[in-house]
Amino acid sequence: MTDHPAPDYGRAFTLWRDAAPEWQAYTRHAFVEGLRSGTLPREAFLHYLKQDYVFLIHFSRAWALAAATSDTMAEMRAASATLHALAHVEMPLHIRLCAEAGIAEEALQATEEAAATLAYTRYVLEAGYSGDFLDLMAALAPCVLGYGEIGARLAGSTGPYADWCATYGGADYQQLCRDVGGLIDGALAHRLGEDWPDLPRARHLSARFATATRLEVGFWDMGLRPA
Amino acid sequence: MTDHPAPDYGRAFTLWRDAAPEWQAYTRHAFVEGLRSGTLPREAFLHYLKQDYVFLIHFSRAWALAAATSDTMAEMRAASATLHALAHVEMPLHIRLCAEAGIAEEALQATEEAAATLAYTRYVLEAGYSGDFLDLMAALAPCVLGYGEIGARLAGSTGPYADWCATYGGADYQQLCRDVGGLIDGALAHRLGEDWPDLPRARHLSARFATATRLEVGFWDMGLRPA
Amino acid sequence: MTDHPAPDYGRAFTLWRDAAPEWQAYTRHAFVEGLRSGTLPREAFLHYLKQDYVFLIHFSRAWALAAATSDTMAEMRAASATLHALAHVEMPLHIRLCAEAGIAEEALQATEEAAATLAYTRYVLEAGYSGDFLDLMAALAPCVLGYGEIGARLAGSTGPYADWCATYGGADYQQLCRDVGGLIDGALAHRLGEDWPDLPRARHLSARFATATRLEVGFWDMGLRPA
Amino acid sequence: MTDHPAPDYGRAFTLWRDAAPEWQAYTRHAFVEGLRSGTLPREAFLHYLKQDYVFLIHFSRAWALAAATSDTMAEMRAASATLHALAHVEMPLHIRLCAEAGIAEEALQATEEAAATLAYTRYVLEAGYSGDFLDLMAALAPCVLGYGEIGARLAGSTGPYADWCATYGGADYQQLCRDVGGLIDGALAHRLGEDWPDLPRARHLSARFATATRLEVGFWDMGLRPA
Repeated sequence: MTDHPAPDYGRAFTLWRDAAPEWQAYTRHAFVEGLRSGTLPREAFLHYLKQDYVFLIHFSRAWALAAATSDTMAEMRAASATLHALAHVEMPLHIRLCAEAGIAEEALQATEEAAATLAYTRYVLEAGYSGDFLDLMAALAPCVLGYGEIGARLAGSTGPYADWCATYGGADYQQLCRDVGGLIDGALAHRLGEDWPDLPRARHLSARFATATRLEVGFWDMGLRPA
Repeated sequence: MTDHPAPDYGRAFTLWRDAAPEWQAYTRHAFVEGLRSGTLPREAFLHYLKQDYVFLIHFSRAWALAAATSDTMAEMRAASATLHALAHVEMPLHIRLCAEAGIAEEALQATEEAAATLAYTRYVLEAGYSGDFLDLMAALAPCVLGYGEIGARLAGSTGPYADWCATYGGADYQQLCRDVGGLIDGALAHRLGEDWPDLPRARHLSARFATATRLEVGFWDMGLRPA
Repeated sequence: MTDHPAPDYGRAFTLWRDAAPEWQAYTRHAFVEGLRSGTLPREAFLHYLKQDYVFLIHFSRAWALAAATSDTMAEMRAASATLHALAHVEMPLHIRLCAEAGIAEEALQATEEAAATLAYTRYVLEAGYSGDFLDLMAALAPCVLGYGEIGARLAGSTGPYADWCATYGGADYQQLCRDVGGLIDGALAHRLGEDWPDLPRARHLSARFATATRLEVGFWDMGLRPA
Repeated sequence: MTDHPAPDYGRAFTLWRDAAPEWQAYTRHAFVEGLRSGTLPREAFLHYLKQDYVFLIHFSRAWALAAATSDTMAEMRAASATLHALAHVEMPLHIRLCAEAGIAEEALQATEEAAATLAYTRYVLEAGYSGDFLDLMAALAPCVLGYGEIGARLAGSTGPYADWCATYGGADYQQLCRDVGGLIDGALAHRLGEDWPDLPRARHLSARFATATRLEVGFWDMGLRPA
């Protein structure tokens, strides 16, 4: 496999991903490679879909918290549009995809949240509550933008997970990633100025991104271990 | 003036409004009567419009916080739809209305938040952060539903503020009030059961509603005192 | 009256107080001058004491939130020591002082929170919840350090309010102010580096301090208007 | 080993522990049995001590949040006293114990937070931020009171972990557990009345306790796997 260039989702993303020790462990995880090659066991994928449902609920809450802690109308509109898309488009879509895969909505709602799901989602939300909008963005970014990078690499994959690959590799999701990357860069400049990478705060935010990336690795690990 | 029956926005609203000592002082405030009769000084109305712009920003943040602290998909969808309508419909509309009234968007954005605006908006947000979804709903309700009750009474008013009266007295806003009333009743039953009015918690929530109502009176008072 | 030099509570305080338009309106308020000269009506002082009781409850909660959102052990220890002193020393002392002034504890607990008290306390708490530790410090500072500056100027005043003046002008409270000033300077440097005054963030924090100062003026205004 | 009666830390604890599927898996975990018998590998104990240091930081923050979201002076004083004891007594003691065990303070501070530590601590804090004081108490209880139950059973154990067993089985810690149990029972009655176990809310709180218990099992599991 030839190496795939990392997509450009802005300045903060580039700095943070390059500094996160487990970025490759996350974006090139065996679960991801299984999606690409089609060799991921069906049972693992279904397990992942159920946990991802729980994840999406808390991820929506995190984007809602971003709107609540926003400082400009542009930030509020971006966060509220993302929340709206998650709650009114993504989640119903996810429920339908699960139904097609044989998971009834009742089963979905009865899913017991795995420790790895709890760890990542509560880490993100707590970052937003105890910190500010930037802490929340740094904790959210590995999910939003990591899926974009994975999708860009897996686009065109065939086999049983072709739909998944097409969704995250598709033009819509890639545009969302550029938008979120721009939101983050704008939020940093608005608060900390253009030289923000030189500030101590930059190290704290980069560490948040790295920790969230580590928890994403744990999420894929969990996906490979259906109960 | 013959008395106007209070609209039916559900059980919690009826209990809370009847227990709030300043409910009439709020919904029959001189500012409101000036909107109805058309005798409200133009300067006061413009002052109100500017403060209402600042209010709407924080009110949107409060609905975002409601989505973040929601406990069911139905609650999240209701809160996120309200936030989306505020951020993407109401606020642009408000900016346009202000422009028509001669307040440029720059002037609007440069508005210094009045103490009465600060008091009400931060009271609502803090209720949500320190308390739970129910505390937030009890603090938000006087605004959403009080405007509904005022609108229902002022619908059909003519004169310079006919548009304002028609907006809040109109079918869309009245439906929104019934929806929010239903959201609140559902959230109470979901957490506290159908006999919630007998619990100590009911007194705390009713006190929150009463305090928020008092701060709404302060907001109208402020409206009558353009700087 | 010859001018009194401002006390030195650190770098952030000096910058923020000099930029707050209403700093003199707050620290030289008629209420303050009445404490100094002893001409403040007794009724106003008792009204203030009752509202200050409610204020102290929420102020304690704000310092608790500071501990919750702290980033270092030093920040946590400083915030937790302040909270502990407020909850276990200051508040019992306040209750005793009120008792001596003829306000029974039941009356104190039944105090209806004035709008000015609500405005300031919820502004501070919400700053901490929606923002981070620095937002909270900038919102808390006008109270802690403003009382220090007032106390330093009023120290030695005689008459009915000599005790009040001696408390805030005394060595213990002045040391507390230097400690809190140092906590704030350290927290800024820890997050933003030594050149933080050049960052956009500095303007936001200065604006927070200025708004909180404005709400302190409102608190003194309220004190002069016993119900 | 004959069975040891569960200690009495109040009504809520008894209900919640009996309903938590993994209570025995937590309080009779292999890590706990290794502490009792003295067969726990030293390396595992040192790994646990380091993670417990990180845990204590966030646990202190959670008690600070409890003070911030408290509703009565009694709740605030109890939470603030616990925070103060943690920040000013427990943590320095923990640092000293670690030093005696050969872990320098710098090594302690450089500890990378394990996923299991992140999961439990952020779950607790987020419960408090998104929910209310009761949610926070239900999430904190398995730690505080579970250690009490474990300590009561392990008191008198000899061997290398005799100190640990004596600390949590000792009169001071057992009294703390009864106090916290009383705080929780009082907080429930204050908000929900004496019949709270019949409310839907009771199921949510019991589920929180059960989830937190599950995360405690994960914490012991992590303890057995030194990196």
